[in-house]
Amino acid sequence: MTEPIRVGVLGARGRMGLEVCKAVDGAADMELAAMVDQGDVLFNMEDAHAEVVVDFTTPDVVMDNLRWAIEHGISAVVGTTGFTADRLDQVRSWLAEKPGVGVLIAPNFGIAAVLMMQFAAKAARYFESAEIIEQHHPRKLDAPSGTATRTAQVIAAARAEAGLGPMPDATKEEVAGARGADIDGVRVHAVRSAGLLAHQEVLFGTDGEILTIRHDSLDRVSFMPGVLLAVRNVRSRPGLTIGIDSLLD
Amino acid sequence: MTEPIRVGVLGARGRMGLEVCKAVDGAADMELAAMVDQGDVLFNMEDAHAEVVVDFTTPDVVMDNLRWAIEHGISAVVGTTGFTADRLDQVRSWLAEKPGVGVLIAPNFGIAAVLMMQFAAKAARYFESAEIIEQHHPRKLDAPSGTATRTAQVIAAARAEAGLGPMPDATKEEVAGARGADIDGVRVHAVRSAGLLAHQEVLFGTDGEILTIRHDSLDRVSFMPGVLLAVRNVRSRPGLTIGIDSLLD
Amino acid sequence: MTEPIRVGVLGARGRMGLEVCKAVDGAADMELAAMVDQGDVLFNMEDAHAEVVVDFTTPDVVMDNLRWAIEHGISAVVGTTGFTADRLDQVRSWLAEKPGVGVLIAPNFGIAAVLMMQFAAKAARYFESAEIIEQHHPRKLDAPSGTATRTAQVIAAARAEAGLGPMPDATKEEVAGARGADIDGVRVHAVRSAGLLAHQEVLFGTDGEILTIRHDSLDRVSFMPGVLLAVRNVRSRPGLTIGIDSLLD
Amino acid sequence: MTEPIRVGVLGARGRMGLEVCKAVDGAADMELAAMVDQGDVLFNMEDAHAEVVVDFTTPDVVMDNLRWAIEHGISAVVGTTGFTADRLDQVRSWLAEKPGVGVLIAPNFGIAAVLMMQFAAKAARYFESAEIIEQHHPRKLDAPSGTATRTAQVIAAARAEAGLGPMPDATKEEVAGARGADIDGVRVHAVRSAGLLAHQEVLFGTDGEILTIRHDSLDRVSFMPGVLLAVRNVRSRPGLTIGIDSLLD
Repeated sequence: MTEPIRVGVLGARGRMGLEVCKAVDGAADMELAAMVDQGDVLFNMEDAHAEVVVDFTTPDVVMDNLRWAIEHGISAVVGTTGFTADRLDQVRSWLAEKPGVGVLIAPNFGIAAVLMMQFAAKAARYFESAEIIEQHHPRKLDAPSGTATRTAQVIAAARAEAGLGPMPDATKEEVAGARGADIDGVRVHAVRSAGLLAHQEVLFGTDGEILTIRHDSLDRVSFMPGVLLAVRNVRSRPGLTIGIDSLLD
Repeated sequence: MTEPIRVGVLGARGRMGLEVCKAVDGAADMELAAMVDQGDVLFNMEDAHAEVVVDFTTPDVVMDNLRWAIEHGISAVVGTTGFTADRLDQVRSWLAEKPGVGVLIAPNFGIAAVLMMQFAAKAARYFESAEIIEQHHPRKLDAPSGTATRTAQVIAAARAEAGLGPMPDATKEEVAGARGADIDGVRVHAVRSAGLLAHQEVLFGTDGEILTIRHDSLDRVSFMPGVLLAVRNVRSRPGLTIGIDSLLD
Repeated sequence: MTEPIRVGVLGARGRMGLEVCKAVDGAADMELAAMVDQGDVLFNMEDAHAEVVVDFTTPDVVMDNLRWAIEHGISAVVGTTGFTADRLDQVRSWLAEKPGVGVLIAPNFGIAAVLMMQFAAKAARYFESAEIIEQHHPRKLDAPSGTATRTAQVIAAARAEAGLGPMPDATKEEVAGARGADIDGVRVHAVRSAGLLAHQEVLFGTDGEILTIRHDSLDRVSFMPGVLLAVRNVRSRPGLTIGIDSLLD
Repeated sequence: MTEPIRVGVLGARGRMGLEVCKAVDGAADMELAAMVDQGDVLFNMEDAHAEVVVDFTTPDVVMDNLRWAIEHGISAVVGTTGFTADRLDQVRSWLAEKPGVGVLIAPNFGIAAVLMMQFAAKAARYFESAEIIEQHHPRKLDAPSGTATRTAQVIAAARAEAGLGPMPDATKEEVAGARGADIDGVRVHAVRSAGLLAHQEVLFGTDGEILTIRHDSLDRVSFMPGVLLAVRNVRSRPGLTIGIDSLLD
């Protein structure tokens, strides 16, 4: 049995930070070494011999946290938002001086969403047709969702690479909007209903068969397996990694 | 045990007629008394003492068939198309003189489609949101399907009757078409893909729960239970009946 | 515009009671007249001129609450558990002396679940096959769920009434359990998985088509439309009503 | 533009052979060079300069066909059944003497089924729970299906490799069979209903999210994309290849 990874959590009193603390605490191969939040000095983290810090704080403090961690040779997993290209360049330059340290910044730690995207990219080349139906609660402001748009782009790119032409569609008479939004030639339908949370279905069809990949996201707690996966892998990936995609093969 | 119903089939060599012959032959409470098609004289039908005729012929002969059947006191179940308001009036006037005879004309004998519509009408008043997703093969010319449009109208009418206002929908930024077609305030999404046949999903939602009614139609053989149901009931419903809806309670 | 219904909530500080207060407060046709919980005297309720009380308390106090309400001519909607046959008889005898008062006691106020059951009962007679798949979180102790068992019984009864025989099933080699539990001749499958909440799918099939009714229950807040429906109808249904089924036509 | 692949079809008058002829004829990068069936001599195939033969014949002639093809340096794609270990060894020994020739024998050319299996294998390691629901027509003799059993085994193996323990399941009271068949610790549910064809759903769950992969197979014509894929790749894979899995990355 290898030593457990010593993990420190920054933003430990926030909604996500609290979930991270519970998840780390429940993982057999990790030890919750330190919990830090506003008012606590970062110093504690070093005393605690943290090997990896997880940061779910705010855009105004995350850069200070990262500089400190990198300087002290501590790898970091970051779910905080607000990373512009400039900020990412800054992190890369800090990391350049510490070749053993890894930082992974992800806008979304949901493993299922990443797998759905990878599976869609792979399946796209083998089917004549592909369409996306995303379903969300009615308080959502944009339609389609960002995930659906990215999935459509990924499918379109895979089809182009495989030399597939336009999908078959004999529609002659259409009530405006019935066939959905056209994202790079892939039709995307956005359902909004009370009772829904966040769901997406990608449908691939060829004569005689249909392959469907569906993702239902019910709770942010679903991000924890992705955070733990990142904690397990960040030290063996020096430099900056964006997203958890590359951790899933 | 009551006597089996003696059934004659008009258009017995056609694709649908043949299925009707098989279905009648396989029904314990029916007897296939006569099979008639072009070239055979209708006379056979009377000799055969048919009590009900099923007509899956063509618009140019169906009216002659119906006049003959009504005159001879034989009830009829009709799947042939092309019934204008004038034709229906003509059938009604023939029936007025034969008070014991029933004629049922239906554009569609699918029981599941009718049940879906009835269930949708009933559920509509209890949910904040309702949306329709119909899915068909890519050779279909219209979007959305006629069934989806009618379902939306039925839902809209039920909501209005129950005093429900517009559905919640905070969409501010929409890629054109993402939210589907607006049919009387109900959003309808039409998916077209190779590998699909004919499918429809009606989704009802309120905070915390979703009720979904889905219909998959894979083969026209699915019309047979509806045809047999009509044969069993047509003699006890004198006059003209349109559709099988009223047979399902 | 009619006068709003004056509603009092008993158990107003409990999890469900709180939701009821919010729901009543948000309903245009109701007025939240009183909120009562342990320590508050019921007297307030009368002062408040409540016309209907909603009781989500506990088995040890609910009978006293009901006797008091009935005596004061106030109708009641009850979600509290623990009603034995004896207790129901007691409530009936109190109501016998107050012919204008109605009491509705329901183990479950979910409208979608009731509609699913009603639709299943109606569809069952028209399809050769019917199966149930229920899906729940892995902390559930019983399999299948009580709702799935009742649905199977309802389907079995409807099939028997319609004279349908056993469903077609040619299975010769079965790994034990593959075909599910046999509840009155209806197969029921219970899925248990992390990430699931409470879901049920009822599938009806005949040659060439499938009708599916699905219910997803994500949150207890979904009970509120059923509670409000009961509040609106309880005064016009004197005597004891069990369940909200009869309110849905 | 490269030269089209010259394809000969053995068993060209059979149900599958006919579909292959149509599919090859419709493929821009292939030329239907020869169609052979019982009574036609194989000689034609050589005259036609076939580069690949596709064999959908019968177990009693397929070995002769393969020996002839390999001897003549023609690669082969084989959908004929009945390949025992002995027969496969025989084919391997023939191929050993013709290092440039490839033979691909597949029990099933459905791409979606293979992708479903590959995606399941990949997803299995990241989720606490996994269950399989397969749905087939009621004439099927075995439950669960062979595909479902293999999927369960693949999932079980991936979980073991990732060090995952048993899935969470608190079931205490079970009506026999409710929780499905236990295949290597993975629960498999087999639904049988009129109206169904061949369907499979694999559900992966972790707290807060569900990933579902579903395959609907409606018609054997769905095998054609897999056959064409094999034709395109068989010449660049000398020796014996079993199944089309390895062609999908």
